[in-house]
Amino acid sequence: MIKTHDTISSSGEFELIRRLESIISTSISPEDLVVGLGDDTAVIRQAGTNQGLLITCDIQIEGEHFRLEKLTPYQTGRRAAAVNLSDIAAMGGKPTFALLSLGLDAEMPLQDFDHLVKGIHDQFSQFDTVIIGGNMSKHRSLLIDITLMGTADLNKLLLRKTAQPGDRLYVSGTPGASAAGRIMMQNQKYIDKRWKPLVQKHIQPLPRLKLARHLAAENLASAAIDISDGLVADLYHICEQSNVGARIDQSRLPAFECSREFESLFGQNALETVLYGGEDYELLFTVPSELPDQNLGDVARLTQTPIHEIGSITKTPQIMLYSPEKGNQILTNKGWDHFARRS
Amino acid sequence: MIKTHDTISSSGEFELIRRLESIISTSISPEDLVVGLGDDTAVIRQAGTNQGLLITCDIQIEGEHFRLEKLTPYQTGRRAAAVNLSDIAAMGGKPTFALLSLGLDAEMPLQDFDHLVKGIHDQFSQFDTVIIGGNMSKHRSLLIDITLMGTADLNKLLLRKTAQPGDRLYVSGTPGASAAGRIMMQNQKYIDKRWKPLVQKHIQPLPRLKLARHLAAENLASAAIDISDGLVADLYHICEQSNVGARIDQSRLPAFECSREFESLFGQNALETVLYGGEDYELLFTVPSELPDQNLGDVARLTQTPIHEIGSITKTPQIMLYSPEKGNQILTNKGWDHFARRS
Repeated sequence: MIKTHDTISSSGEFELIRRLESIISTSISPEDLVVGLGDDTAVIRQAGTNQGLLITCDIQIEGEHFRLEKLTPYQTGRRAAAVNLSDIAAMGGKPTFALLSLGLDAEMPLQDFDHLVKGIHDQFSQFDTVIIGGNMSKHRSLLIDITLMGTADLNKLLLRKTAQPGDRLYVSGTPGASAAGRIMMQNQKYIDKRWKPLVQKHIQPLPRLKLARHLAAENLASAAIDISDGLVADLYHICEQSNVGARIDQSRLPAFECSREFESLFGQNALETVLYGGEDYELLFTVPSELPDQNLGDVARLTQTPIHEIGSITKTPQIMLYSPEKGNQILTNKGWDHFARRS
Repeated sequence: MIKTHDTISSSGEFELIRRLESIISTSISPEDLVVGLGDDTAVIRQAGTNQGLLITCDIQIEGEHFRLEKLTPYQTGRRAAAVNLSDIAAMGGKPTFALLSLGLDAEMPLQDFDHLVKGIHDQFSQFDTVIIGGNMSKHRSLLIDITLMGTADLNKLLLRKTAQPGDRLYVSGTPGASAAGRIMMQNQKYIDKRWKPLVQKHIQPLPRLKLARHLAAENLASAAIDISDGLVADLYHICEQSNVGARIDQSRLPAFECSREFESLFGQNALETVLYGGEDYELLFTVPSELPDQNLGDVARLTQTPIHEIGSITKTPQIMLYSPEKGNQILTNKGWDHFARRS
């Protein structure tokens, strides 16, 4: 029962999605809808074929998702495009076309507008994606809403709901690096050049399209997601949708650069940052246990992507962190929520 | 040459689109792109077929495009969906799937959220369109960005660039009614029940999908557009892209209801409102001159849509308004521009 004074801030993002689903579920799902609400990317079957049309959108608002004091307009554009490309990567798709919705501050210099568009365009061009439309409107701050389309072979789609107990769990890159980079930027102490790679990971995440498309083409992964909310939060998406659990081996988690210094200078716990940091846009994926280790070594080499085995999928529907010192600890699902009140 | 202090507000929407096009035009247009930048809806050929995938997005921001004091959340949702459906109608397409990007104020009551989503859903359901994804974010006011997809037979697509001199010019409904309704609402004098149809046209525009799909299926129209910026502004889009002009016969323009009262009470010129009002979401289309009058009468009857012949397409690239009193007057292109400074 809803009380009349309940507001958006008193619920979380998942509660809102649940409400939306319950309102919309009155319509019958058309048979050519392969993946609908509840995923970052929707998938539609192209009539009479095994080809899927992928479509995703992501809104980025100045002040809420980024700050123009910290990022140049060019960087802001590149980053917004990368975030969308990562959603197509998560399914093993090939990005194709994009629409741009821009909200622009009347006082924005035209040169900044040009640099913003150039950033979006350059990032998309790197992955053969073309901007084909959109719209522009006045807004009190910069707002970027990108709709990105892609294609995928429906028999090779990477999904969240298909992980199996016993599967091995892998992650690309070094989760936590982006969050550490963000904290360094916020504290304006990122002048030390050794920290640049961390700041760079935050400013310019690399969508893992190469890796994801290889995994999909070779049928190597049983499930996948990109890490936007955080390693644990996104692993929870896989676990919930696959009806499984997971066990992360703490000793196998790759440490991001300068993590010791990051801890001592910023009073942050590096392990927490790895597990919950978010905005990594790395690929988290599962691999059937019978697949030889050698194959994943080949994948890393062929796609020039660092990947690490960090644990395995379990039957019990919870996520555990194992270390020899503390044994198995249950990890709670405390990912990023845009609507939760912040301290 | 751009001066470094030039800002968004010193240029117009079309200047911004021109800049965007010049930055993006470095990439080669892929061959399966049928309609790209410069139209409200993009069209992609589905590989190896004559089917086109239509895709459009439109952002609506509280305070900029609508006011929640004037519209209920349900009406706001319906209207936002209608605006997008109208863009698919303009091409004679069949809408299929939608993505919702919502920016939500933390203090928005959950019941309002439900009503908003219900409004969007109900409007889409009316035209067999299903919401399949999207994203939600915190925003200081309500923001609705809808991406809508559709399909169309590429041989029957309605375009802006295909009007020919001699074609007859038609419009559905009564342009100006929406703008008059908006002005009535703003003046809070819409209590008179005779004005309700005008206010209703503003609050709940009817996307002309039935009419447009019939025109497309029967190959009756040579060009079409939906009126969002205003009758003259959108006619200019047809003229510019078709490299033609047009002549409107003033005596044939349908008058919206209560237009005399509207003039005297609000000090507005009804003719100006018809020509420049905007947000009508009526269909403006051209018909080859050799087509018998009878056919258009049939169209109106079969699709239950009022349509009026209001003029013709000419060779000279300008838009004229003809009346016996004043002869031919040139109409300037002063449509709605989100970025122009307002008085």
